[in-house]
Amino acid sequence: MIGEDAMRPRIGLVLGDPAGIGAELAAKLLADARMRRLASASVIGDARQLAAGARIARIALPELDIDDRANADPAAIALGRACAEGGRAALDNFRHALARARDGALDAIVFTPFNKQALRLGGMRFDDELRFAADFLGYRGAHGEFNILDRLWNARVTSHVPLAQVAALLSVARIVEAIALTDRAMRAAGTARPRIAVAALNPHAGDGGSYGREEIELIAPAVEAAREQDIEASGPFPADTVWLRARDGQFDAVVTMYHDQGQIAIKLLGFERGVTLLGGLPIPITTPAHGTAYDIAGKGVANDQALKRAFEIAAGMGLARRTAAVRK
Amino acid sequence: MIGEDAMRPRIGLVLGDPAGIGAELAAKLLADARMRRLASASVIGDARQLAAGARIARIALPELDIDDRANADPAAIALGRACAEGGRAALDNFRHALARARDGALDAIVFTPFNKQALRLGGMRFDDELRFAADFLGYRGAHGEFNILDRLWNARVTSHVPLAQVAALLSVARIVEAIALTDRAMRAAGTARPRIAVAALNPHAGDGGSYGREEIELIAPAVEAAREQDIEASGPFPADTVWLRARDGQFDAVVTMYHDQGQIAIKLLGFERGVTLLGGLPIPITTPAHGTAYDIAGKGVANDQALKRAFEIAAGMGLARRTAAVRK
Repeated sequence: MIGEDAMRPRIGLVLGDPAGIGAELAAKLLADARMRRLASASVIGDARQLAAGARIARIALPELDIDDRANADPAAIALGRACAEGGRAALDNFRHALARARDGALDAIVFTPFNKQALRLGGMRFDDELRFAADFLGYRGAHGEFNILDRLWNARVTSHVPLAQVAALLSVARIVEAIALTDRAMRAAGTARPRIAVAALNPHAGDGGSYGREEIELIAPAVEAAREQDIEASGPFPADTVWLRARDGQFDAVVTMYHDQGQIAIKLLGFERGVTLLGGLPIPITTPAHGTAYDIAGKGVANDQALKRAFEIAAGMGLARRTAAVRK
Repeated sequence: MIGEDAMRPRIGLVLGDPAGIGAELAAKLLADARMRRLASASVIGDARQLAAGARIARIALPELDIDDRANADPAAIALGRACAEGGRAALDNFRHALARARDGALDAIVFTPFNKQALRLGGMRFDDELRFAADFLGYRGAHGEFNILDRLWNARVTSHVPLAQVAALLSVARIVEAIALTDRAMRAAGTARPRIAVAALNPHAGDGGSYGREEIELIAPAVEAAREQDIEASGPFPADTVWLRARDGQFDAVVTMYHDQGQIAIKLLGFERGVTLLGGLPIPITTPAHGTAYDIAGKGVANDQALKRAFEIAAGMGLARRTAAVRK
């Protein structure tokens, strides 16, 4: 691996969906000397895809470590459309990166955006890439998706489920687990004692039980239990004002009860900079929070801020992990 | 009424909770010559409260039309705490304004913030002021609460109900009603053909039915039905990106399925400027979206942007209503 040394994290940069902006973003990242100083990157994907991405981005790539999977010929895959070939290639790249990480050859993984429809066409049997990765790694511990915007983290107790099922899926144990997972993941990423706000479920936090009792019966007890584990948790806070306080720096993280409760806020606060972390797994995995952006694929105008931020977070977490491993 | 003329709307300015920042805000508004040009205001509340508000705001009030209810002596009501006397006075003021509006003496009502706990202590039997007003006016037609930020409106299909009940409360008819109410209210406020986006219920708008079917079975048919009524409706759109598009000017309004889906976004986009409209009633009623702000009551630092914006909107809607009445 180019530039490898013991104290430098090794990141597997997975090429995601080949019909989107992924290869263009990867080329932009790899051409950035600051990124290359942060970590040694091994690109996992089709070398022709990456070359096509560099052409789209109009940049010359430096010398690279490419693990060429030769699985997605740009000449055979149309830009801007989900297809089975693209999904298969993205899954193959991801699987290969997970295997290398499992074997100790990578400290973190970053992937350019996947397209869920393409992944399904390409054979993925899971609801999302988090469950796919956990299954591949045979990991049964607590894990969850985090959204990260600048220094602010968002974890959620429920995620890709119908809104009608959210309330029934909540329990004190699940809420405590999400809070504790947030605490652990943020410590692994370098925040010594994260201040974690927990959102309410109901409007006006239920207004003293008038519009739902989950705050009283589940969320407040969960916050209390987390505090007994020496976690700096507080809440439940009304969801529509907790984000104002988090934006103003009063909290390091917000744990939300369902997907859109966090996503509406995070996207408004900085759609183009948001990062997703598949947290809790044995290896840190990050990706931009935005999608494949089929509408601008091939145009050379894709914004690389989120991928670079995903790379920085993976480098930080990968370094901590590698340092800990070397010390053992 | 001071400054009254046929083409100038008559606004009842109701003093809300006397323990908060309401009287201070009212004094600031009444001292603003631009506001006085927009409409003739009749203050409905305790004259001593208003005088105390002017002292807190450190301003001299101009000559005013005060409908003195003598129901909330500032010497007897502590600032910063909900109490029954305060709730009773606020309810009395509101009821009196509604009666005057019903009798044709007002074209619109603006109130400074209520405190829900104080209203309940003071004897309100309804969940919120919208239902109180509808009941008082004996109004049985469609009505609903709107949040307005600058030129962007938000209406919701469900409001102060537990999140667990939201999905069960949705129906094609209720969603169409919310869209049509938005269209009517925005036309009454001067937007000729409002572009109304309708939010999805589930994460990623259900992702083609994977995480819930309300988008397919209820929301898309409701949008279709609204379009057949010649309403410029579109959607359902994922809730976490529809607000980015609305912020960027692609829509004039967003109809959301539940309270926090809109409130999280509106508050992040401009908490200090947001206005609530009790829409659909025979008389336009507006109020700042913020609360009584007990923590800064009496300090003279309250931000009057939202109350002034509430007054502007009420003046615009009141003028249209008055013009229509005069033409009859």
